[in-house]
Amino acid sequence: MVDVVTVGEAMGRLSSQGIGPLRHSAALDLGTAGAESNTAIGLARLGVPVQWVGRVGDDEFGRLVISTLRGEGVQVHASVDSSARTGLLVRERRTAAVTRVSYYRDGSAGSRLVPADLDEDAIRGAEVLHLTGITPALSPTTHATVTAAVEIATSAGVAVSFDVNYRSTLWDPICAAEAIRPLVASVDLLFAGLSEARLLVGEHVADEDLAAAVQALGPSHVVLKHGRLGASSRVDGDAFTSGTFVVTEVDPIGAGDAFAAGYLSEWLAGADPAAMLDTAARCGALVVSVDGDWEGQPTRSELTLLDADDVHR
Amino acid sequence: MVDVVTVGEAMGRLSSQGIGPLRHSAALDLGTAGAESNTAIGLARLGVPVQWVGRVGDDEFGRLVISTLRGEGVQVHASVDSSARTGLLVRERRTAAVTRVSYYRDGSAGSRLVPADLDEDAIRGAEVLHLTGITPALSPTTHATVTAAVEIATSAGVAVSFDVNYRSTLWDPICAAEAIRPLVASVDLLFAGLSEARLLVGEHVADEDLAAAVQALGPSHVVLKHGRLGASSRVDGDAFTSGTFVVTEVDPIGAGDAFAAGYLSEWLAGADPAAMLDTAARCGALVVSVDGDWEGQPTRSELTLLDADDVHR
Amino acid sequence: MVDVVTVGEAMGRLSSQGIGPLRHSAALDLGTAGAESNTAIGLARLGVPVQWVGRVGDDEFGRLVISTLRGEGVQVHASVDSSARTGLLVRERRTAAVTRVSYYRDGSAGSRLVPADLDEDAIRGAEVLHLTGITPALSPTTHATVTAAVEIATSAGVAVSFDVNYRSTLWDPICAAEAIRPLVASVDLLFAGLSEARLLVGEHVADEDLAAAVQALGPSHVVLKHGRLGASSRVDGDAFTSGTFVVTEVDPIGAGDAFAAGYLSEWLAGADPAAMLDTAARCGALVVSVDGDWEGQPTRSELTLLDADDVHR
Amino acid sequence: MVDVVTVGEAMGRLSSQGIGPLRHSAALDLGTAGAESNTAIGLARLGVPVQWVGRVGDDEFGRLVISTLRGEGVQVHASVDSSARTGLLVRERRTAAVTRVSYYRDGSAGSRLVPADLDEDAIRGAEVLHLTGITPALSPTTHATVTAAVEIATSAGVAVSFDVNYRSTLWDPICAAEAIRPLVASVDLLFAGLSEARLLVGEHVADEDLAAAVQALGPSHVVLKHGRLGASSRVDGDAFTSGTFVVTEVDPIGAGDAFAAGYLSEWLAGADPAAMLDTAARCGALVVSVDGDWEGQPTRSELTLLDADDVHR
Amino acid sequence: MVDVVTVGEAMGRLSSQGIGPLRHSAALDLGTAGAESNTAIGLARLGVPVQWVGRVGDDEFGRLVISTLRGEGVQVHASVDSSARTGLLVRERRTAAVTRVSYYRDGSAGSRLVPADLDEDAIRGAEVLHLTGITPALSPTTHATVTAAVEIATSAGVAVSFDVNYRSTLWDPICAAEAIRPLVASVDLLFAGLSEARLLVGEHVADEDLAAAVQALGPSHVVLKHGRLGASSRVDGDAFTSGTFVVTEVDPIGAGDAFAAGYLSEWLAGADPAAMLDTAARCGALVVSVDGDWEGQPTRSELTLLDADDVHR
Amino acid sequence: MVDVVTVGEAMGRLSSQGIGPLRHSAALDLGTAGAESNTAIGLARLGVPVQWVGRVGDDEFGRLVISTLRGEGVQVHASVDSSARTGLLVRERRTAAVTRVSYYRDGSAGSRLVPADLDEDAIRGAEVLHLTGITPALSPTTHATVTAAVEIATSAGVAVSFDVNYRSTLWDPICAAEAIRPLVASVDLLFAGLSEARLLVGEHVADEDLAAAVQALGPSHVVLKHGRLGASSRVDGDAFTSGTFVVTEVDPIGAGDAFAAGYLSEWLAGADPAAMLDTAARCGALVVSVDGDWEGQPTRSELTLLDADDVHR
Ligand SMILES: Nc1ncnc2c1ncn2[C@@H]1O[C@H](COP(=O)(O)OP(=O)(O)O)[C@@H](O)[C@H]1O
Ligand SMILES: Nc1ncnc2c1ncn2[C@@H]1O[C@H](COP(=O)(O)OP(=O)(O)O)[C@@H](O)[C@H]1O
Ligand SMILES: Nc1ncnc2c1ncn2[C@@H]1O[C@H](COP(=O)(O)OP(=O)(O)O)[C@@H](O)[C@H]1O
Ligand SMILES: Nc1ncnc2c1ncn2[C@@H]1O[C@H](COP(=O)(O)OP(=O)(O)O)[C@@H](O)[C@H]1O
Ligand SMILES: Nc1ncnc2c1ncn2[C@@H]1O[C@H](COP(=O)(O)OP(=O)(O)O)[C@@H](O)[C@H]1O
Ligand SMILES: Nc1ncnc2c1ncn2[C@@H]1O[C@H](COP(=O)(O)OP(=O)(O)O)[C@@H](O)[C@H]1O
Repeated sequence: MVDVVTVGEAMGRLSSQGIGPLRHSAALDLGTAGAESNTAIGLARLGVPVQWVGRVGDDEFGRLVISTLRGEGVQVHASVDSSARTGLLVRERRTAAVTRVSYYRDGSAGSRLVPADLDEDAIRGAEVLHLTGITPALSPTTHATVTAAVEIATSAGVAVSFDVNYRSTLWDPICAAEAIRPLVASVDLLFAGLSEARLLVGEHVADEDLAAAVQALGPSHVVLKHGRLGASSRVDGDAFTSGTFVVTEVDPIGAGDAFAAGYLSEWLAGADPAAMLDTAARCGALVVSVDGDWEGQPTRSELTLLDADDVHR
Repeated sequence: MVDVVTVGEAMGRLSSQGIGPLRHSAALDLGTAGAESNTAIGLARLGVPVQWVGRVGDDEFGRLVISTLRGEGVQVHASVDSSARTGLLVRERRTAAVTRVSYYRDGSAGSRLVPADLDEDAIRGAEVLHLTGITPALSPTTHATVTAAVEIATSAGVAVSFDVNYRSTLWDPICAAEAIRPLVASVDLLFAGLSEARLLVGEHVADEDLAAAVQALGPSHVVLKHGRLGASSRVDGDAFTSGTFVVTEVDPIGAGDAFAAGYLSEWLAGADPAAMLDTAARCGALVVSVDGDWEGQPTRSELTLLDADDVHR
Repeated sequence: MVDVVTVGEAMGRLSSQGIGPLRHSAALDLGTAGAESNTAIGLARLGVPVQWVGRVGDDEFGRLVISTLRGEGVQVHASVDSSARTGLLVRERRTAAVTRVSYYRDGSAGSRLVPADLDEDAIRGAEVLHLTGITPALSPTTHATVTAAVEIATSAGVAVSFDVNYRSTLWDPICAAEAIRPLVASVDLLFAGLSEARLLVGEHVADEDLAAAVQALGPSHVVLKHGRLGASSRVDGDAFTSGTFVVTEVDPIGAGDAFAAGYLSEWLAGADPAAMLDTAARCGALVVSVDGDWEGQPTRSELTLLDADDVHR
Repeated sequence: MVDVVTVGEAMGRLSSQGIGPLRHSAALDLGTAGAESNTAIGLARLGVPVQWVGRVGDDEFGRLVISTLRGEGVQVHASVDSSARTGLLVRERRTAAVTRVSYYRDGSAGSRLVPADLDEDAIRGAEVLHLTGITPALSPTTHATVTAAVEIATSAGVAVSFDVNYRSTLWDPICAAEAIRPLVASVDLLFAGLSEARLLVGEHVADEDLAAAVQALGPSHVVLKHGRLGASSRVDGDAFTSGTFVVTEVDPIGAGDAFAAGYLSEWLAGADPAAMLDTAARCGALVVSVDGDWEGQPTRSELTLLDADDVHR
Repeated sequence: MVDVVTVGEAMGRLSSQGIGPLRHSAALDLGTAGAESNTAIGLARLGVPVQWVGRVGDDEFGRLVISTLRGEGVQVHASVDSSARTGLLVRERRTAAVTRVSYYRDGSAGSRLVPADLDEDAIRGAEVLHLTGITPALSPTTHATVTAAVEIATSAGVAVSFDVNYRSTLWDPICAAEAIRPLVASVDLLFAGLSEARLLVGEHVADEDLAAAVQALGPSHVVLKHGRLGASSRVDGDAFTSGTFVVTEVDPIGAGDAFAAGYLSEWLAGADPAAMLDTAARCGALVVSVDGDWEGQPTRSELTLLDADDVHR
Repeated sequence: MVDVVTVGEAMGRLSSQGIGPLRHSAALDLGTAGAESNTAIGLARLGVPVQWVGRVGDDEFGRLVISTLRGEGVQVHASVDSSARTGLLVRERRTAAVTRVSYYRDGSAGSRLVPADLDEDAIRGAEVLHLTGITPALSPTTHATVTAAVEIATSAGVAVSFDVNYRSTLWDPICAAEAIRPLVASVDLLFAGLSEARLLVGEHVADEDLAAAVQALGPSHVVLKHGRLGASSRVDGDAFTSGTFVVTEVDPIGAGDAFAAGYLSEWLAGADPAAMLDTAARCGALVVSVDGDWEGQPTRSELTLLDADDVHR
């Protein structure tokens, strides 16, 4: 039995090489992507038994998704959908500072996920169900699947963790807010960036009131992420702030997914809120100082790499 | 003004490196693909003014398609469709002998081509309109576009060339035959493999009767392709056979597109049918002895590379 | 529970790029190797539940071995040995025709495998225990582990499969024969090349008598491999011969391991000896027509790739 | 008809991979280079119709130059000179901070450009003729060609733009100044770095007097470039200063060429001098934050990338 | 005859590509490594005749070591040991800031060096014998070889230079100190980092007293290295400090080896202590601003690259 | 002292990757080339002390030439000419069967070799002076240098070996014949292809009379090469024929240079003419079954690789 179940779309990832317009790249590096599967990998590396639920096509990208997740120690509960292709995510490093992401996921296998794809027993037996705001955006059936998963978890007393992860290429802010707010009512632990939090509670809320405003929607535990500045949390009535870890940012993508993995691993271990923030912020910082969306996520013993010398030999 | 107009979908091309399942490839080589655009490049290399008509997305793959075709000297008449992505073609060399191709082209920009995208004046001013059986398979609007193009050409006395190019991943043989047969009635010059010819005239027709049976559907000029064995043609009542060019087959894809380019270039030059077959077969042979769908296509002076020594210095 | 258990050393694999002396290669491609783990992957691809037992170091090569095997669906039962490094296999393609393999495996984690590393319950619950002649050559403890595994299997009525796999860089023929012969007495199904068979039964035995002579040592089922010419078997008193599959040989390594996987998959399915040879020979042929030691191994549906057209689209 | 005509040598570009002495690079990346063709690409990307005039050899590097420029939308007016090779530019990143450039362009096709290669009608019909101080340095015939182009432009009332672009490997400062000064007399818009300006007006002129001193030689419009600090201009009697754009400098080459493209695009659009500097400085900043001499140049909509978030998705 | 003799192990070097866990790298770049051979290359580049003494296996990595050193102008005095493999060094760039190095050198050819491998005449005829604290750590015979070399040098009045180069993966601090201290008694010129110096003289010694404390062990000339802050020296009773060179650190490895080469080259030229420090610090700074352990080392004319413009053309 | 001295131009080598027009290659592999330096490397690998005499530019390609040759054990006697660039050779694999070579060597450092660059003592002390027909084609001074070298050798009783190596891109057949014939009068051992032999003795000479006709010009020892069919020789009045070695031809370039090295190594060892042909033909066959002009050349123990199994482990 696993401690965490997560549900979402994982895709083939095609990343241009070097810095510049993608069309000048002789080849695109091949890998996998997906916010929930990234977090699943992060949890597995930190020693947490975790299941990822999704749907892939009967094609090489789908087989790559499955072998990568299994290889990383994630328990894969995947339907193979022979009527649709595995989605693709395309990454371009347009300048040293700007990364552009686009998708080939309309009608993808992952977007055809249905509630019946869930492994109800796994959810009921877990400690946490972790979801993101991407999955409900993909299609009516994925939306229904997320809703069903939350109901299963709630009815079984399993905590629900939710990372807002707003994607402007998938839907507009109003649709997103309408879809996400009802889910948030059942959420115990919520992760959001500042603008994502405002999407839920309104543009007018001041920075210092955001966490409390989000709490009012349901989650007793609210974590706000501030990019390279670290993160803060509000747990019931108490506020906490992470330290800041200064790293060379090699690839900005995946920080939030790693952060969630770090946070959940400490929550499962019964750590205090400050330790949750510390581990989470370390995970986020480590993943941006490595190429790839998830490749840089740490094992438990690697959490201290941020404190280390530059050469180990 | 151009001599040839061709209409179709051009896509981003992602090819696995080395031989084996695509998911074991660290990166996918980036290029472009598309039967009609391949033939357009072949014609341009042979010195024939040619226009390619299509639709691409407002994305890097679309920009790559346009810059590649323009760079090769093709006149590009392309709509940029900001509501759809440029299609993708994925190539895997599963074994030394088996290449597998799959597509991300459902709902692609190229499949949203409409009759209004055509450049009527260019067609009317050309000598030949060249089409393939792929375009009508993509969507109702591409089908309508092909039909409209044929009508413009026919009414202007412009010859119509058609390469059957049956793709089993796009439609089944019955649909294909039903859609293609009406077009063939207006075709002057038709290219087909043996099984493609049978798709049009029935399974029972003997090899030696195929060309005549296809002629009966309309085209006065029928060219049958026999892979590495070369090709044959029937022009009105006369039969012709190409020589055979023995090459090391490096990449089987694109032979037919190059063949059509070679054939049309001689037709435009007023060559005799034997010369048309000879140039066409050389183009086909040269493209399979080079990596890539179209990269190996020859200029006029390179047609004799097949007769050459192994080292030129 | 798994159907097959296999035990051996898996290593990091470093392969030179291009053809020529390894020192002229700018980089070495990274992968994994190991006869038994190769066969385990082949079985998993063919749908057979399989466990691989081994030992790796606490290093990146060890983590690569584990993630690769898990990713391919093999159940991994591996000790992580923090006192030794994961072994390395270095591959050089010295000429188009000659591949040279060398090892960094003295004192490796894999060679420190001990009987206690075995998963006795898995063996007892399996249908087949598959071993090779490499493992007993690595160290006294690996030798003891192989012997222990055979004893567990035999006592539980589990069939023992053995691939001779003689490696001249690990030991000389006399030592090998002395070590292997006692094991063969308990073997049910034995795989060998002609010279490997002679190593067991003597140089003087004629080709046509080899299988029977090996049978006399114990195995009721003897399979002799003849490289590109295919294979033959002797099952109790009956002789069988495989067909020959003509392929372009891209990489000669791994044919025997794939062959064993194909053979065992049919044995487990209760197929007849001719079908076992056919599937086995297809697996061997497919793996040599692909780069890498195991990457080209087929799934069940890919067994027919050898009969296929050159382009699938 | 084009708005801008530019004349110069374009070359094959060979760039070492990684950082260190070029001889340790396993391969050299292939591309194209040339100050005037870089600016032509920049203009085409910004939507300005532009013609590049040059001469290439009948070889692959020459074909690469032509297909690259055409692919980028530049109208190419190139003679193919079968008696000379296309020039080569070799780039080495000797350290993280120092890039070294060397040339194989003695006697190159590009240096054999003659006045008759010009397209007089295109110059007469354009708004601007853009030249650099590199072309007159290549050979007496290129010098004559530049002079002829200026005369055609001047006589037709076409504005002349000139980027000093002093190259110490082509000539010494005294020769350069002697050759360039007479041209500058006919120039309307001049681009220079501080030391390049001093080459024209003398070492003793103070920074703040440079623009006026250059104006005294002819150009009513003088733009001085200050590297990462931005640029300033003097237009008739008024002085302007660009903002500073802070970017990660990935590749310092090509900033000036992109700057000129940005500047001219605004000049053609009738923008005010501050807007010219702003767009120019954005183009320069964007190109240094991307690999390659010209690849990072922006389209009009990409000018705002400098103001953007780090991840777009 | 050479001016410097150095003795040590040189290895094949395998470096992961990109930043992240090594197992995610598709290939490992191939090169050579070894502190003493790095210094030998640095000396050769600076024009100093130098001999490297070592032992390699009869394999491609050994041949690579020899051809690399010879290619760089080092006189190679190497035994080829057909009973052992050439050692390997594996480099991983775990994060942008942390490089991890591991070894396959147990029982390597290089660790089987014996006193008889020395070229006594070369030592006797040299000006300096340069050694490091790595070689005595490898095996009893390498320890004996180092001791023998020192004795030969001392008895011939040849100066002994020693770089402490403590490696925690080879031995612990106490063993290291015990082995190195007796050698240091015969050393004239000693290089150490601060913690290495403390290893010899005790943890309690204050920074400002370290050099003198080391001098008390024997060396009249003590150089302390402070990483990016530069270095300082104590020569008899006088203290000297290097300038600081600010560079972009691309690869931290090899700075100390390059530093030693720069220092010795000036010592041999009879320069004063400040010049020794300046050249040494330039060499260290240059090597960290280039990929590779030794590839960035300068020739004499490249020492000024640190003072240079960013583009040379 | 060396046994063989050879004189010629060595260049940077840029080879396109994959098969197809060079301009479609993302990068060009970097190496070195030159007929005489190739033969020098071949000799060094076969254990023959050999000196190469040439001139390179003060640039990275020149430094690569020198480090490569030194690394391969060739004694380099090279002038560094700071007024000229090292020549370049560009290789394109236009199709699987056709390799095209072009040069950037006009006015190169190598073509500025003068008689004073020779090491007279080395020639006088050698057994053989080896030259090719390329060097006299480069410039009047290289022609004079070759003539001077022959005179020194002849006067000292040193045998002269000459490989005709006609290059149509350097001169026409009539000039070549006029320049080479006088040299041949002093040659002892001559290598030629059939058409090269005819260049010297006339088109009309029958195949079977060619060797004798060449002998009549001077050389007592004439070796004729027949590509993949092997070679034949005439030594005084006796005729010899090599065996044929069947290999997969990976790269046709360099066979003749390797052949000469093999031949000379046996001549120096006093072998009989059949053994000279056998070793030479093995060297030629081995080099074409490996990528690169010289990289595949064998050591003495690798001569038997042609007789070997396909996997060595
Ligand atoms: N450049 C960085 N330096 C240090 N820590 C970072 C950096 N980027 C992200 N992090 C850590 O990761 C967390 C999540 O990052 P964020 O950028 O908000 O993620 P995302 O945008 O992927 O949701 C931050 O709160 C911070 O703790
Ligand atoms: N391997 C080959 N060797 C020589 N010529 C070939 C080869 N393959 C194709 N061709 C030539 O190209 C033509 C078209 O090839 P074909 O395989 O029929 O194209 P496609 O399948 O792409 O339509 C053939 O008729 C023949 O003339
Ligand atoms: N080149 C080939 N062509 C076709 N089949 C092959 C080829 N090589 C191997 N096989 C198949 O694989 C089997 C095992 O190959 P073999 O070379 O004996 O393996 P190994 O040397 O790895 O033990 C052969 O018996 C044959 O059936
Ligand atoms: N590192 C940089 N950061 C920001 N802007 C830059 C940078 N380098 C160049 N630019 C912009 O590009 C312009 C031209 O750069 P410059 O280095 O003078 O070009 P070049 O040397 O190629 O002529 C500068 O004036 C500035 O506006
Ligand atoms: N990042 C750097 N910037 C400038 N100089 C450096 C840098 N790193 C090393 N150096 C120079 O090289 C010398 C040796 O560096 P150090 O890091 O101590 O070497 P190592 O750890 O390899 O022994 C330093 O004393 C300094 O002079
Ligand atoms: N494909 C091949 N197969 C076997 N041997 C070859 C092959 N090519 C060349 N050789 C051997 O090398 C020798 C020289 O080859 P050749 O092609 O004549 O050289 P080059 O053209 O470089 O002068 C031949 O005489 C033959 O012995």
